[in-house]
Amino acid sequence: MAVTSSASPADTPPPGTGDGPVDGASLGEVVELLGLVAAFELDDVPRFAAEAADALDVEGRLAYSRRAGASLARCERVLARIEELGASPVTAMTPFDGAFDDFDDRTQASTWEEEVLREFVGRSVAEDFCRLCAPALDPVSRDVVLGVMEASVADEEAVQQLAEAAAADRVLSARLALWGRRLVGEALRLAQALLTESGTFVHLLTLAREVESDPAAKDAGSDTHTWALRQLTERHALRMRRLGLTA
Amino acid sequence: MAVTSSASPADTPPPGTGDGPVDGASLGEVVELLGLVAAFELDDVPRFAAEAADALDVEGRLAYSRRAGASLARCERVLARIEELGASPVTAMTPFDGAFDDFDDRTQASTWEEEVLREFVGRSVAEDFCRLCAPALDPVSRDVVLGVMEASVADEEAVQQLAEAAAADRVLSARLALWGRRLVGEALRLAQALLTESGTFVHLLTLAREVESDPAAKDAGSDTHTWALRQLTERHALRMRRLGLTA
Repeated sequence: MAVTSSASPADTPPPGTGDGPVDGASLGEVVELLGLVAAFELDDVPRFAAEAADALDVEGRLAYSRRAGASLARCERVLARIEELGASPVTAMTPFDGAFDDFDDRTQASTWEEEVLREFVGRSVAEDFCRLCAPALDPVSRDVVLGVMEASVADEEAVQQLAEAAAADRVLSARLALWGRRLVGEALRLAQALLTESGTFVHLLTLAREVESDPAAKDAGSDTHTWALRQLTERHALRMRRLGLTA
Repeated sequence: MAVTSSASPADTPPPGTGDGPVDGASLGEVVELLGLVAAFELDDVPRFAAEAADALDVEGRLAYSRRAGASLARCERVLARIEELGASPVTAMTPFDGAFDDFDDRTQASTWEEEVLREFVGRSVAEDFCRLCAPALDPVSRDVVLGVMEASVADEEAVQQLAEAAAADRVLSARLALWGRRLVGEALRLAQALLTESGTFVHLLTLAREVESDPAAKDAGSDTHTWALRQLTERHALRMRRLGLTA
């Protein structure tokens, strides 16, 4: 069942989406991706709130509570779209409940810098995964996903401080580069699990890749699974370079 | 310095506020009460979020995350008023940061019923304290406080379940009545600490009592401190009776 939508297309279509909406993603597949995005945002609410509880002063408590509130607001935007599509938010999120626990358990940070990088890498890879799938969605759902990804940036200030600290300290820089490789390995493990456990994401990525106009990004010679992991790895490497770290 | 406000009065003034705004509360006193209300709401954000993290399924996780988000939204309404009054939200909340930890530490619940009653009694007494002070505020601040108190009801469904469980089980009912007395004792201890540590709340309560039109509620023969604690105790007793428990 193809998702059709009467809403107007986005003012400026995101790169790689071609000229019009893409047919071929079933309603169930669209809802599955939306469920992943919503669960990802919901997962952050208690995470930020725990940091609020541990904050040393009211300023930190308020800042982290606001991040928790922003995660919930993003989750709600996605849930509203799931409801518009006639599906159940709770049912859509349920398959992904706890999906990020494994990543968390395997990447316990021991310093502030490690924690900032952990959050940055984990979040960025997850967002890239959703961004890669997004062109396969109907325009409204696609805009919801891309809007949420746009708003859901990491703590830029902390990442900037991290880059400055690494630039001033070769030992720290080398240690963080190593930690970054560990982190991306675990994040890709999670992406692989998503690709293996459900045919949906491979199908969405296949559709999304078809409308990719940049030949380098399209990378026609590989299968979808390999293509997706390569895309995620390349985007990660680019980010690490921007931080001054060796990927 | 009297708080003056150009905003229009509320459509329906809350009971006991007389005909017009009350002069006499200083800007600093108004901000102090608003800071208490905001800190009280902010305190609940990590509390509900921790319950979201511990929830057994997505439905519970979403429900508790939404309660955390609603607490933050109420906090923000109060902070916006603090800013309108030209004061700093963080500075206003700081004296009350951690003010509720002592109550929490002293009232560790050992069952679900005890936890529901704990939350209900603690929250209700704190809300009553703010409601008692509210008539002393300028109309806009008063409406913000009463609006937040109005929205900030306890988990009515859980309280209803508790009342039904207690009605069906005399042993449970007796145990909860005892627990309720312990809880209100600790909540009044906190109220007393607020009254003792700052002259602000005694002054606000004195002003609020002056505009009280019901002679019984005005209770003219007692000092403000005694009057306030008696008011809190009576309102608590009324709530416990509604639950079918002996206060």
